[in-house]
Amino acid sequence: MTTAPAGALMATEIAEQPAVLAELLAQGADAIADAARRIAKRRPRFVLIAARGTSDHAALYAKYLVEVRLGLPAGLVSPSTMTVYGARPELSDVLFIAVSQSGGSPDLLDSLTVARDCGALTVAVTNNAASPLAVAADVHLDIRAGTERAVAATKTYTAELLTLYLLVVGAASGDVAAVDAIPDAAAATLGFEAATTAAQRYRYADRLVTTARGYSYPTAREAALKLMETSYLAAQAFSGADLLHGPMAMVDSRVPVIAVMSPSRGGAAMAPVVERLKASGADVLAVGTQEGLPLASAGVAEELLPILEILPLQQLAWRLALDRGGDPDHPRGLSKITETW
Amino acid sequence: MTTAPAGALMATEIAEQPAVLAELLAQGADAIADAARRIAKRRPRFVLIAARGTSDHAALYAKYLVEVRLGLPAGLVSPSTMTVYGARPELSDVLFIAVSQSGGSPDLLDSLTVARDCGALTVAVTNNAASPLAVAADVHLDIRAGTERAVAATKTYTAELLTLYLLVVGAASGDVAAVDAIPDAAAATLGFEAATTAAQRYRYADRLVTTARGYSYPTAREAALKLMETSYLAAQAFSGADLLHGPMAMVDSRVPVIAVMSPSRGGAAMAPVVERLKASGADVLAVGTQEGLPLASAGVAEELLPILEILPLQQLAWRLALDRGGDPDHPRGLSKITETW
Repeated sequence: MTTAPAGALMATEIAEQPAVLAELLAQGADAIADAARRIAKRRPRFVLIAARGTSDHAALYAKYLVEVRLGLPAGLVSPSTMTVYGARPELSDVLFIAVSQSGGSPDLLDSLTVARDCGALTVAVTNNAASPLAVAADVHLDIRAGTERAVAATKTYTAELLTLYLLVVGAASGDVAAVDAIPDAAAATLGFEAATTAAQRYRYADRLVTTARGYSYPTAREAALKLMETSYLAAQAFSGADLLHGPMAMVDSRVPVIAVMSPSRGGAAMAPVVERLKASGADVLAVGTQEGLPLASAGVAEELLPILEILPLQQLAWRLALDRGGDPDHPRGLSKITETW
Repeated sequence: MTTAPAGALMATEIAEQPAVLAELLAQGADAIADAARRIAKRRPRFVLIAARGTSDHAALYAKYLVEVRLGLPAGLVSPSTMTVYGARPELSDVLFIAVSQSGGSPDLLDSLTVARDCGALTVAVTNNAASPLAVAADVHLDIRAGTERAVAATKTYTAELLTLYLLVVGAASGDVAAVDAIPDAAAATLGFEAATTAAQRYRYADRLVTTARGYSYPTAREAALKLMETSYLAAQAFSGADLLHGPMAMVDSRVPVIAVMSPSRGGAAMAPVVERLKASGADVLAVGTQEGLPLASAGVAEELLPILEILPLQQLAWRLALDRGGDPDHPRGLSKITETW
């Protein structure tokens, strides 16, 4: 354990993100562009993405990008089909991307190894170039986030998002100039600090719902995970459409809702969902609006907004955990590298 | 609304399932076998599956079957990439399956239409042969469950599972004889009625976690949805592996856990997860054990166990909703056909 005050590590790592993103663009973008060209040359027909935990939300983001920007069908891997059931699918023409902060999870390593043996071009996106996953993959992309010491992942998540954007959009068109706005926009978004006030609202909440659509849906998923692992809330994430198919029944005035409504097509598609939520008496906090959790989104491409959207939600999870007497650097029952089979 | 006592519709439809499954095998299996042969002849390289709500859990089951039994990579469709972002992926070689009880959801219809226009072979699995989705697809498979009147889906879910098993395993090998055991096994499983006692345990619970791996993971997802929509619990489903990557922190002695542990490779892979859960003080109810919620699983193939596993969990959701003063036939805020875009 550490002698630092509770939450000091997570606070530092949240604040580091603008610098981490700038450093990734300055030092890492060329290698990612090389990988993007290699992928474009190989002309994959289908993309599989494998990840767990926070990285699984980066994987979901990449799935949307692949479908919309590369125009390829994509799937998130259920590692158990290969590790538990021994599936050996035919994967020539397939691009297989594994995303893992540590690069150390045995089931991801097994899945990637099987995928490579079955003919896929394999790419590992990790924060550890010496990790087993990085070594096993045909291509390794280093997210260059520096050591992450808090158990709750923050800077590795946004660095994974940026890496995957550079990779997928680079493979699709080569033009990734929109990323240049990101470090400053991230710094400005962190500067709003509206999360400190918002955290008071949830001080005694036991449950919470997060919701979004499209590119922002991974934000809702990652925000729910952050709240679960740091504040022990029962936080449930739903796509706006899925929420209407059943879970809506459990939402009433005692269930707070966080809806991602940033200026985008996904945000616009949320409008009828938020209307239904408000009609059921729900207390809705909107990410991406002035009266909610604002973003410095002016001039930022829609596809890059998820990098900004998660920032105030990380601040919210951190503040709420401290207010409730927890230590977000060391959640109970968790360690930094999770080994699953 | 109805004059029937609360929960009467859902109780009837839960009890009908053995007969619905027997009728599907007797009257529907030939048409599904024809479709399976058509798919095998077309030799798809990838499979995409689109669904919402309960049907999304049947889609997830089909994804495991496709990966393991057909040996093909598969993905669950995010309809918004086509409907919100206008993606037009290249889908020759792709089998696109849409699963929907009503066949009436506009976003699924749009996704299937785009997929067909992009070259995919499209299959609709619905309970309404006259629905827009059924009409738009190259192939329609009728799950023949009869009109489902309770808002919480039960018999259409198990009929979707059986239809998808017949389709995918039929396309893989042609041998689907294992299904013959299912109607009797379903009747015997419903006869145990252990859920009545188990429901007492959760009478005052506000939150609950369900967990499973592999083929049984859709069971955990569907059980959580049933509990959310009928009893308004914050029920959260996790794959056993994902649970260890973060959400485990929020599980303590006040958070009940339902773990699917039926006799299978997925059930066996849950053993270390349940050990961790018990070490954290969690109250674990196991589906598939004598002391938990037993199944009449003797002689039933592992891949068909999900059809049995959900039955006591439907009974649990029904009983708990009534005990808590709700009406599982008419959950607040929901209607039978959910239209999303």
